[in-house]
Amino acid sequence: MKPEFVIDATNFMDIVKNLSFESIDIYLEDKNIKVIAGKSEFLLPTMDPEEFPEIVPNKVEEGIITFERQKLLSMIERVIFCALRDSENVSRNLNGIYWDFREGGYLTLVAADGYRLALSELSMDIINTPPSFLLSLKSMEELLNVLRSSKTENVELFFDGARVLFFLDDDNIEIILNVVDATFPDYVRIIPQAFKTKVITSTDLFLKVLKRVSIAAKNDQVKMEIKDSIMELTAKSPEVGLAVEELEIEKEGEDIIIAYSPKYLREAIDHIGTSEVEFNITSESSQTMIKPVGDDSYMYIVMPVRLK
Amino acid sequence: MKPEFVIDATNFMDIVKNLSFESIDIYLEDKNIKVIAGKSEFLLPTMDPEEFPEIVPNKVEEGIITFERQKLLSMIERVIFCALRDSENVSRNLNGIYWDFREGGYLTLVAADGYRLALSELSMDIINTPPSFLLSLKSMEELLNVLRSSKTENVELFFDGARVLFFLDDDNIEIILNVVDATFPDYVRIIPQAFKTKVITSTDLFLKVLKRVSIAAKNDQVKMEIKDSIMELTAKSPEVGLAVEELEIEKEGEDIIIAYSPKYLREAIDHIGTSEVEFNITSESSQTMIKPVGDDSYMYIVMPVRLK
Repeated sequence: MKPEFVIDATNFMDIVKNLSFESIDIYLEDKNIKVIAGKSEFLLPTMDPEEFPEIVPNKVEEGIITFERQKLLSMIERVIFCALRDSENVSRNLNGIYWDFREGGYLTLVAADGYRLALSELSMDIINTPPSFLLSLKSMEELLNVLRSSKTENVELFFDGARVLFFLDDDNIEIILNVVDATFPDYVRIIPQAFKTKVITSTDLFLKVLKRVSIAAKNDQVKMEIKDSIMELTAKSPEVGLAVEELEIEKEGEDIIIAYSPKYLREAIDHIGTSEVEFNITSESSQTMIKPVGDDSYMYIVMPVRLK
Repeated sequence: MKPEFVIDATNFMDIVKNLSFESIDIYLEDKNIKVIAGKSEFLLPTMDPEEFPEIVPNKVEEGIITFERQKLLSMIERVIFCALRDSENVSRNLNGIYWDFREGGYLTLVAADGYRLALSELSMDIINTPPSFLLSLKSMEELLNVLRSSKTENVELFFDGARVLFFLDDDNIEIILNVVDATFPDYVRIIPQAFKTKVITSTDLFLKVLKRVSIAAKNDQVKMEIKDSIMELTAKSPEVGLAVEELEIEKEGEDIIIAYSPKYLREAIDHIGTSEVEFNITSESSQTMIKPVGDDSYMYIVMPVRLK
């Protein structure tokens, strides 16, 4: 179905928002739309409806996947902050979220920026597993905004190979997003399998200590010295000086001294959501895996920084 | 009086804000301050107290000027948005607010950015008229923040020739600001004396029409066509199209067609504060003076833009 006429949505919304009249009249005059309200008159150029893309995918009942809105929202929020911001970079494939469907009813959302990666998983009843796809950060942010302001219980997803349709049941809203034609890196390869040191501590306490010690880090590193039952966090900078604080932990494996970007640690902790957090450290120079204790649906992988 | 030790206020505040303990201990150790609270320990470098400037001016009773806080606040707010933002520019003298005291108990605050100028005036009981001075935009913003959050009734000002002291009576807060060593332009010369066209209209209505028509202006101009009893506002841009709206006015003098930056018009109207606004137009290419009807303590002068 082709539209009658096509106008710029942002400009049109801007106009309608600022009109304080009871009713507005809209006329199509040649290639312009005339909007009249009170003594206000707007003449808006239209675009060629023939060039308006055919965007509605042909839904096939068996291909529809149903999500609880709240669950989908939280899955996206737990990974989106890791996506690479820069879209003009060579790593265009990182400027988005990868929707990885796997046989058996598994969906994993993945976002990464080259220094860290976040992954949230969901197990569902799926009749036909669709192919995996990549959606741009921009379109994911728009979807997120709609999901946040909606009150619908369920969201349906349908993928026709090029476009993804999200349907918000109760709101009767359809959102159609083009997938990005780029290959997302093989993230499974990045998930470490063996660990040298495993640490469990209180998420809340760790966050408080991290916040305080980070003050002295400025934009530099926070050092974690891990011994039996104690973790010492340290940071220093010429401007602020030195900050040191201890924290009780449970530890398995070797003692280690390791450093991270305070921002990258902080953002991981912000998305843990359980009372205890687990650090799985492979070495001072390879990936650390951070996850909520008792929740296997979330994982955050971060590169340590070189100790100063 | 010299201080015992000097530390960075921002960093220290940041630390204290994030400590969640009942009490903190502070020690001076050599050239560092040690802050201990619970298991947190901070070591902060201090600065040389000898290099801390002697900042307290020698107050002389007769030189003190008393303001009502609310009145001073509003005077500053009505001009500060016009100050030049860029401090690294050659026009360093515009990156602030000029406090112009004149015999007879008059104070005029003036800010300008080369395209427009705002001026607010106050008449007071002054025993000794102090010299006029210029305060930087940054220090004025800080003063404004303090004035906004304070509940004190009166603010005292004292100027010793190099530093201005503001004293907030009820809060017992002293703010000492260095004046900027630069000459503010002779703004009186810029105030137009004779007008070709004078227009009076409803401030509220004008603002609504301006807002709507500005949508089509994007960042370009808004055109005002002034005839007897009617002003027509027009704006256009390739993206949005065309917007036209009429407004009832009272007019003295000649018909005129004139254009302005929508932002500069908008910010003027935002600071009018009376139900009617007056436009005093000299010509299409020279200063327009905008003022509240019935309030001679405020004036806004803006350059029109070249008609397209």
